[in-house]
Amino acid sequence: MIRISLDLMGGDFGPGVVVPGAAKALERHPEISFLLYGRKDLCQPLIDKFPKLKAKSVFYDCEVAVAMDEKPSQALRRGRNVSSMWRSIEAVKLGEADVIVSAGNTGALMAMSKFCLRTMANIERPAIAAIWPTLRGESIVLDVGATIGADSQQLLDFALMGGAMARALFEVERPTVGLLNVGVEEMKGQEEVKDAGRLIREANLESLEYFGFVEGDDIGKGTVDVVVTEGFSGNIALKTAEGTAKQIAGYLRAAMNRTLMARIGYLFAKGAFDMLREKLDPSKVNGGVFLGLNGIVIKSHGGATAEAFAAAIDVGYDMAKNGLTQKIENDLKRYHAMRLPPIGPEAVMSDEV
Amino acid sequence: MIRISLDLMGGDFGPGVVVPGAAKALERHPEISFLLYGRKDLCQPLIDKFPKLKAKSVFYDCEVAVAMDEKPSQALRRGRNVSSMWRSIEAVKLGEADVIVSAGNTGALMAMSKFCLRTMANIERPAIAAIWPTLRGESIVLDVGATIGADSQQLLDFALMGGAMARALFEVERPTVGLLNVGVEEMKGQEEVKDAGRLIREANLESLEYFGFVEGDDIGKGTVDVVVTEGFSGNIALKTAEGTAKQIAGYLRAAMNRTLMARIGYLFAKGAFDMLREKLDPSKVNGGVFLGLNGIVIKSHGGATAEAFAAAIDVGYDMAKNGLTQKIENDLKRYHAMRLPPIGPEAVMSDEV
Repeated sequence: MIRISLDLMGGDFGPGVVVPGAAKALERHPEISFLLYGRKDLCQPLIDKFPKLKAKSVFYDCEVAVAMDEKPSQALRRGRNVSSMWRSIEAVKLGEADVIVSAGNTGALMAMSKFCLRTMANIERPAIAAIWPTLRGESIVLDVGATIGADSQQLLDFALMGGAMARALFEVERPTVGLLNVGVEEMKGQEEVKDAGRLIREANLESLEYFGFVEGDDIGKGTVDVVVTEGFSGNIALKTAEGTAKQIAGYLRAAMNRTLMARIGYLFAKGAFDMLREKLDPSKVNGGVFLGLNGIVIKSHGGATAEAFAAAIDVGYDMAKNGLTQKIENDLKRYHAMRLPPIGPEAVMSDEV
Repeated sequence: MIRISLDLMGGDFGPGVVVPGAAKALERHPEISFLLYGRKDLCQPLIDKFPKLKAKSVFYDCEVAVAMDEKPSQALRRGRNVSSMWRSIEAVKLGEADVIVSAGNTGALMAMSKFCLRTMANIERPAIAAIWPTLRGESIVLDVGATIGADSQQLLDFALMGGAMARALFEVERPTVGLLNVGVEEMKGQEEVKDAGRLIREANLESLEYFGFVEGDDIGKGTVDVVVTEGFSGNIALKTAEGTAKQIAGYLRAAMNRTLMARIGYLFAKGAFDMLREKLDPSKVNGGVFLGLNGIVIKSHGGATAEAFAAAIDVGYDMAKNGLTQKIENDLKRYHAMRLPPIGPEAVMSDEV
């Protein structure tokens, strides 16, 4: 059984999307049980409409809902202990849930998650990992917005955590990991990225295969399983790709509507277009994963449909089922054990010399 | 008349692409005259095939060609004064050409351009501006790879230079300018970007309208005429968008080949697909513009076709014709004049107090 806590009040549509989304996910994974957090007057009537979901859920009434435009600091002040967001996260901390999924505002969700769950030992700052559709399947890209300007050690941590997530998600044994960089010779890259490359190479990590630098166009190609970057460029890459996909979909729509011949062609090729639409459908790939916390937190798009929210639950389900947190902890431990200086009189001696 | 100098030896295909590219551009703009730099044994036979081009060109024999994988420092050492790249740039410095176009390696071209032309007064580091097709037409994005980690003053310089380029290219009077940032509340953005936002707002620039922050998906939407960012994230955004476009084209091809119905549909809609292909054709938008130097340098894609190289010449033609350098110099002067402390005894006095 996988126990998933849901913040029913998160997202642009709140329980109206989250509840049917949960029902959809439950159909796919009947072994899920849910802990549901929200305002009773708004949520209970909706839950009553899905008897199967209701039978597999426990509902907790929470008076406070974090607003989508609320500042993280304000959300923490107002919503700590009492909001649906906080309490759904807390369920993971208390060991009552294996993973929490929320479509609430990213900043508040991250702030509350950090505050409530705390970062793992040796992890300074968490990362948000996105699952990115590629020509070869899917890759993981992190960080897409949690930390602005990570240093080389943090980039190495991201590589470790992303590698663990790839093993949980793709079931590859030793995922390939690339560092996102720019391709202009001799001006090549930020110092942090260069240093991180050296650091990762020298660390000789068992858990992943370090590929080297990759460029922006390698993400869509699927050159590596995991693309590591700091949050500023990662967020810009993610949003730019989303924008480009929308732009091309717009061109395609316009082209197919321009002439009668094109419209006829569209009818013949409708199956193909549906397939393409499916490929490009953002609701099929939804769910950013917060990595580096003592517990799994999944962030759904705020504007997600029920179908998309169900996809985010799927991600949470996979992560919990495949023991993401444990995998990350093990990898971190192994890495840091390797780095520790030898313990004993010799070590102390050599330190004093 | 617009005088354009060309590095015939640049790019993956050298004169085999550059010479026919020049011939194509000349058909569109008969008022161009060319200064051609390259190895005579390789170039002259090709030029002889295009009598119209030959009539409007002067050819200069250069023994040295900069290699595509040559390090900038090595290219400078080996190619200064003698390479086709250097001499085509020098033609601008000597006032013999209005603009230079090269498909040679970016790092070497930037290094030589900086060394030969020098940066403009008050400009610390040049930027590379890309012309980006959007849903609303075209926008300018800079920097896409020349400076890694620009500070707030440099970002303001980019805004000024990008604004001047927009006026030269789009013939808008007061282009809108946005700063590329991430959208996660309270973790919002690098310090440099936030500072640059304040700086640009306070500068109250006549030459542009400051829009505020934009995100990655705003580029493709065409939210602003000019998107300003530092070179690391700009390069990643550009390459990621290119990768995404290729990825979707790949999906589309696969979808259209999957069934007989789809192939029939494709035939009916072929005109529409051709239109789409045209929209997505990288050769239609080719030519990065180096900004901030005492002269206009256009960088074509290394893998450009003759058609694409002609497009890069078109960009150079437009920039020279519309007085890009002069526009930038004027805007910079106006901005810096505004910033200067009052001149006169009072100023000196107050300095000494």
